[in-house]
Amino acid sequence: MNFMNSIFELETPCLLLDLDRLERNIGRFAAIATQHRVTLRPHLKTLKSIEAALLTVGKDGPITVSTLAEAEYFSAAGFRDIVYAVGIAPGKLSRAKRLVSSGVDLKLLTDSTAVARAASGLGMKFLLEVDCGDERGGLPMNSPHLLAVAKEISEGGNIVAGVLTHAGHSYSTNDLNEVKKIAEEERRSAVGAAALLRSAGYPAPIVSIGSTPTVAFGENFNGVTEVRAGVFMPFDLDQMSRGVCSADDLALSVLTTVIGHNREAGRILVDAGGLALSKDISASGFLVGAGYGHVVDAKSAISLGLVIDGVSQEHGKINLADPTWFERLPVGSQVRVFPNHACFTAAAYPGYHLIKNGDLAGQWNRVNGW
Amino acid sequence: MNFMNSIFELETPCLLLDLDRLERNIGRFAAIATQHRVTLRPHLKTLKSIEAALLTVGKDGPITVSTLAEAEYFSAAGFRDIVYAVGIAPGKLSRAKRLVSSGVDLKLLTDSTAVARAASGLGMKFLLEVDCGDERGGLPMNSPHLLAVAKEISEGGNIVAGVLTHAGHSYSTNDLNEVKKIAEEERRSAVGAAALLRSAGYPAPIVSIGSTPTVAFGENFNGVTEVRAGVFMPFDLDQMSRGVCSADDLALSVLTTVIGHNREAGRILVDAGGLALSKDISASGFLVGAGYGHVVDAKSAISLGLVIDGVSQEHGKINLADPTWFERLPVGSQVRVFPNHACFTAAAYPGYHLIKNGDLAGQWNRVNGW
Repeated sequence: MNFMNSIFELETPCLLLDLDRLERNIGRFAAIATQHRVTLRPHLKTLKSIEAALLTVGKDGPITVSTLAEAEYFSAAGFRDIVYAVGIAPGKLSRAKRLVSSGVDLKLLTDSTAVARAASGLGMKFLLEVDCGDERGGLPMNSPHLLAVAKEISEGGNIVAGVLTHAGHSYSTNDLNEVKKIAEEERRSAVGAAALLRSAGYPAPIVSIGSTPTVAFGENFNGVTEVRAGVFMPFDLDQMSRGVCSADDLALSVLTTVIGHNREAGRILVDAGGLALSKDISASGFLVGAGYGHVVDAKSAISLGLVIDGVSQEHGKINLADPTWFERLPVGSQVRVFPNHACFTAAAYPGYHLIKNGDLAGQWNRVNGW
Repeated sequence: MNFMNSIFELETPCLLLDLDRLERNIGRFAAIATQHRVTLRPHLKTLKSIEAALLTVGKDGPITVSTLAEAEYFSAAGFRDIVYAVGIAPGKLSRAKRLVSSGVDLKLLTDSTAVARAASGLGMKFLLEVDCGDERGGLPMNSPHLLAVAKEISEGGNIVAGVLTHAGHSYSTNDLNEVKKIAEEERRSAVGAAALLRSAGYPAPIVSIGSTPTVAFGENFNGVTEVRAGVFMPFDLDQMSRGVCSADDLALSVLTTVIGHNREAGRILVDAGGLALSKDISASGFLVGAGYGHVVDAKSAISLGLVIDGVSQEHGKINLADPTWFERLPVGSQVRVFPNHACFTAAAYPGYHLIKNGDLAGQWNRVNGW
């Protein structure tokens, strides 16, 4: 056994990223985009990794980010076509301007005349945020305020580059027919808002939609120019619980070590707790027994039928119905955990240990924070 | 207005730490330890900051950590008396040994003969973990296994330095009389286990107990040599919900900026979402309307009566009963958020902006990860 090829030599907790699964997931979504003749602009908010971005769209491909720290990290690696898909705070405009000055084709997001006014004279591109039913950011597709914001952007010497919407409410259901309806609402809202802008004389070339479920199951992409999705790359229990992927697609896991047996309580303790897994339990809405993650064999990723039932900061707790697990998982042995929500779990780590067929195959770093 | 003294120039989201409140909280727990004639061994798992440790016990004082990364960070700053209060995985022993070789008086934790065997010949100090009812790590106070582990430690040339227990179940109640009972169980378990070890010939000089609630409200510390508590330094809504502190004691907050007004949904959006606040909602068990944090004035920290009602990765959502808040909190304005659980919220950041009377007063860094 080659020392560097064995996950069993890794210090835990750490993140494992299965390259074969990752490539398959990326291939699936690239094919969806090709089929619907839209551009895939992957959202890097999940993996926040240069190599993952390169694998998906190449260096010249378009990407989506959720923080300016990500925008800076990817631009330093050569990425130029970047959408920052969170409404920008006025206080962040000067930092965004520095990216544009360095050659990045950065598209900012807003639905606010105040932001548009604050950007006056900066020569930035803006996407107008449209609310397609998620009730987070954005204006309704027919809102006269859309034109007011566009006017303010344009009069301040900035560019109305298009519209963006996100069907975050697609996560509220695991009914695929419901997801398809939401996908159509998402499309219709974005296309409608773009039509409104164009009717008022703004070219609005970009019509950007996307969430992993609506991109996966949407049937009509007419008028859409690009789709954003991110968590599809590694997938997670949250997506699995909504029928968007299967257990065999889960590419991200936390490697953890058994640190104790509480035989009186019928419980195994591992060194992946709430910080290592995150406190996100979003899969539990549609997946009974998701807990804080599914426990699988460290090498094969085959389910052990065990769950992280509870966490404290540095402890994961696995409740046992069958005490023979105390013998099968001795103190010092390792298991892997498929987390609820990859975006949140990955954020606790500086990067990924790559695996292929259960063996180590390199490392990728990631950017965190703001 | 001095540029560097204004929190309004900070990029958000970021962490603010109120020095006056921090010092007052530290003073309160130092006085508790003095009153009960026990050593305060603060748990640095919450703030993970050298300066916070220095402020509490000085460089020669004893500290508690939850990761080896913390142990290394504090030892590099000169701290020598360190308890690593999570059951150690066999795979981490060599890293712990390096700390000991560099001069750290490190105490490890275990309840496992397998770990004791793996440590054979390393010359390390161990505390035996006792379960006082939390059902996490540890053996019952009267368990013969305690002696088996002690024997294995001792025969392997390692040292039985004492016992450690943690009444994590003190968080299951907000009834102070119940907390007092749990504190007494915690004390009795540790003292009983130490007596068992001593009766078998092991000196067991350290009898370590502690959780913030049981240290705050325990009445009898006979036989205990030290108390561990950590979240008392900044406190949080979780502790407030259990009556351990008041709103005026909350020292840690997240500074955030309004990035959008969704007037149709009656909702203000801020740039502190689930990553900036964490998905921990532990205060909600005993505090109706804790949400993902309480919203307060950025400068005065006076409550605005608003709550972060929902989060997505980079968005916090404040639902408004009163639409005049759209005028009072324009896009670009800042508020602060008192989080549910300081340990989890702080872990997303590289450090703290210190404030005194609402003005900036320096920065401290912190260590994250493992």
